[in-house]
Amino acid sequence: MREAFVSEVVGTAFLILLGAGVVANVILPRTKGFGSGWLVINFGWGLAVFAGVYASAGSGSHLNPAVTLGLLANGADEFADGVEANLTSTLVYILAQLIGAFIGAVLAFLAYKNHFDEPADPAVKLGVFSTGPEIRSYAWNFVTEVIGTFVLVYIVIQFGSTPSGLGPLAVALLVVGIGASLGGPTGYAINPARDLGPRIAHAILPIKGKGSSDWAYSWVPIAGPIVGGVLAGLAARLG
Amino acid sequence: MREAFVSEVVGTAFLILLGAGVVANVILPRTKGFGSGWLVINFGWGLAVFAGVYASAGSGSHLNPAVTLGLLANGADEFADGVEANLTSTLVYILAQLIGAFIGAVLAFLAYKNHFDEPADPAVKLGVFSTGPEIRSYAWNFVTEVIGTFVLVYIVIQFGSTPSGLGPLAVALLVVGIGASLGGPTGYAINPARDLGPRIAHAILPIKGKGSSDWAYSWVPIAGPIVGGVLAGLAARLG
Amino acid sequence: MREAFVSEVVGTAFLILLGAGVVANVILPRTKGFGSGWLVINFGWGLAVFAGVYASAGSGSHLNPAVTLGLLANGADEFADGVEANLTSTLVYILAQLIGAFIGAVLAFLAYKNHFDEPADPAVKLGVFSTGPEIRSYAWNFVTEVIGTFVLVYIVIQFGSTPSGLGPLAVALLVVGIGASLGGPTGYAINPARDLGPRIAHAILPIKGKGSSDWAYSWVPIAGPIVGGVLAGLAARLG
Amino acid sequence: MREAFVSEVVGTAFLILLGAGVVANVILPRTKGFGSGWLVINFGWGLAVFAGVYASAGSGSHLNPAVTLGLLANGADEFADGVEANLTSTLVYILAQLIGAFIGAVLAFLAYKNHFDEPADPAVKLGVFSTGPEIRSYAWNFVTEVIGTFVLVYIVIQFGSTPSGLGPLAVALLVVGIGASLGGPTGYAINPARDLGPRIAHAILPIKGKGSSDWAYSWVPIAGPIVGGVLAGLAARLG
Repeated sequence: MREAFVSEVVGTAFLILLGAGVVANVILPRTKGFGSGWLVINFGWGLAVFAGVYASAGSGSHLNPAVTLGLLANGADEFADGVEANLTSTLVYILAQLIGAFIGAVLAFLAYKNHFDEPADPAVKLGVFSTGPEIRSYAWNFVTEVIGTFVLVYIVIQFGSTPSGLGPLAVALLVVGIGASLGGPTGYAINPARDLGPRIAHAILPIKGKGSSDWAYSWVPIAGPIVGGVLAGLAARLG
Repeated sequence: MREAFVSEVVGTAFLILLGAGVVANVILPRTKGFGSGWLVINFGWGLAVFAGVYASAGSGSHLNPAVTLGLLANGADEFADGVEANLTSTLVYILAQLIGAFIGAVLAFLAYKNHFDEPADPAVKLGVFSTGPEIRSYAWNFVTEVIGTFVLVYIVIQFGSTPSGLGPLAVALLVVGIGASLGGPTGYAINPARDLGPRIAHAILPIKGKGSSDWAYSWVPIAGPIVGGVLAGLAARLG
Repeated sequence: MREAFVSEVVGTAFLILLGAGVVANVILPRTKGFGSGWLVINFGWGLAVFAGVYASAGSGSHLNPAVTLGLLANGADEFADGVEANLTSTLVYILAQLIGAFIGAVLAFLAYKNHFDEPADPAVKLGVFSTGPEIRSYAWNFVTEVIGTFVLVYIVIQFGSTPSGLGPLAVALLVVGIGASLGGPTGYAINPARDLGPRIAHAILPIKGKGSSDWAYSWVPIAGPIVGGVLAGLAARLG
Repeated sequence: MREAFVSEVVGTAFLILLGAGVVANVILPRTKGFGSGWLVINFGWGLAVFAGVYASAGSGSHLNPAVTLGLLANGADEFADGVEANLTSTLVYILAQLIGAFIGAVLAFLAYKNHFDEPADPAVKLGVFSTGPEIRSYAWNFVTEVIGTFVLVYIVIQFGSTPSGLGPLAVALLVVGIGASLGGPTGYAINPARDLGPRIAHAILPIKGKGSSDWAYSWVPIAGPIVGGVLAGLAARLG
């Protein structure tokens, strides 16, 4: 269990370092990738998953509470070799994912420190860390996150939960696709740890000119992905 | 057969959810991906195929009447393990593909509900669902769809009809390529269900400010792909 | 040999249909992909190779006289199972590649017929078919084509000449990379048939408002790739 | 050892030819890819790695002193079949990588000779060869290079050091991802040879209108990657 814990921390840290990093590159001032667009963000997050999956093979590369809970709902016996799927391991995984996401966000902040020091809209600086909707409407934002996460977890279950062969590439491409296709309204959290861990980092870190961490919205990218993931796990049992 | 039916419904629903989704993201107002361009649409549709193929391995992942009819014309004995290729299974597959495409379009509508509520040209809103030509000329639009679908079905037959190894990635990349290369004139339906199912959804759904469903054009993305797919199936017999 | 001939014709026809197609989509007026940029062209040509390779496994998927001559220079015994590498088979391959390239260009013309009928600079219409330099300087244009083709043929020889496993994807990605990296000065013919076959098609086809076929430049994308391919074949013998 | 030396020279030459090439294509005047953006550069460098890896399988495809030193810190016994990992082989690898990088930069210069002859800001011409920060701040630029290289070497160690199966593609995609995500502040050298070899070429080559080779900055993309690579090698021992 200790090995799985470390594996999830490390994998999620890589995921968020690269994921927050690509957003920083595209939206923070004076970067080389400034304004380079949505496809860069989509591929950046997909390849963040790619790296994160390789870094966490020992725990089955969940990196996402919605995946962990979805596999549990799907009736998985094990999360990885020798790691039974039960309440304890679920909590350990989710805790590890949150810690890893927090660490990854701090590292992305350090990598882009000069650019965070530049003047920018506080919403832009928050946008590196956490998702936010383009049109705020909690109910529909929730629906979008449910649908996006359903796609992620349902298809990941088709892959099998352990990466192998095309595995890490398959999940990377799936995340590129979900981002391109379903990320338009809310910025595709599709992962509670991906949103909450960096949001906590945003609240704590000494970011020059930062504004609100927008806690009012923070439940949407937690509840939506959990519901979507569990529904996907249940739906995949019918297949 | 019941399993193959469900598999085609599910796979085609994922295909259209992600495919209509990426178009919504690029063309509907106030999305994060607004105006992000043709390559996003090409990759989005390719990765929609990728997800759809994984979700429908049980039926051989046709997701497209042109593929089903092309394989029939090619002389396939089976569409999937234990599913004989005959008139009945062909009709079951096509029906499943249409139903799945309709469901996928409804889900994409829900995921982008806030953005459909924004004011936009009715042609833009239809464009999320169905294809339309840039220069309307039924004969040449038909030719373009024949050629695009011929490429799809001929190459898919080279892969073998069952996904394996690089399989789901191969067909995804093929669709990215067909879109990039042959999608310019008509928006590459290359799949009658991909166009007709969502067009029916457009006609039925309560979309704010929607206009015509452009039934006058609707035969082109049905007839073109069928002719292209059957020609490809026949041509591949010569190889 | 007859099978290899047909295989090279078919594969090269797919290559040029999709390759000329993507250029048409990006540069001809009123297409959906108009102005969508260099990366679309790079991926479009890469995926054109991808499709072409699958369509021509029976002949070892050369699709390019520079590959055929490069393998010969490298000392290959066979071009494909049962096809001895000798002067006759070399000439058969090159003839097949030219014929296939011509057919592919005609098909791309038909797919984009409406768009060729629109008014546009004659150089744009030629650009769908053949390459041309941004800065005309035959000696340096020649050098660029030698270097680009050297990369192609040298790395393809590392793959082994027969596609397998990642094979068709590997060569597709290699061509994306060569285009992105070395296509800037001359538009990366890196294949005499890719340039000459469509140039002949341009000269013959009834293209509205077409101009010169620029025969003065035509020797560069023939001689450069041949020299680059042969040098690569020789260099790879040293490895 | 002689074979490994040649392999690293050749592989790194391909890496830099294509890597410097894509930057030339995007930033030098009057190229076909001029202004085509960050994602082209990211994919171009990723596919440069892809080609370089295939060209250097005989030496384990390091192509980067940070990889060589990272593997050494990780406790590798061998760099490739029959090449013991020790001080001598480390120096041989690093020398080979520098020579290869120099050769690759010269070849990229030749491929883009006409475009180097055009008037442009000297910083643009240097940018084809070497990296430079958007916001000059040696300490934070160093941190960014440490983090980026840590990701590269840590994940490469997870792949295993010898390319196989998805191997060359995996490292290519990893480099696309690191570029997209962590390249914003400094242009991601993440490889001392990639920066120093071409910088020496810039200093020596007769480039029209060239300016300073910016030696003041040159230690950052050497020291940062070395520290990041060694830290990654050590960290991966804990896993």
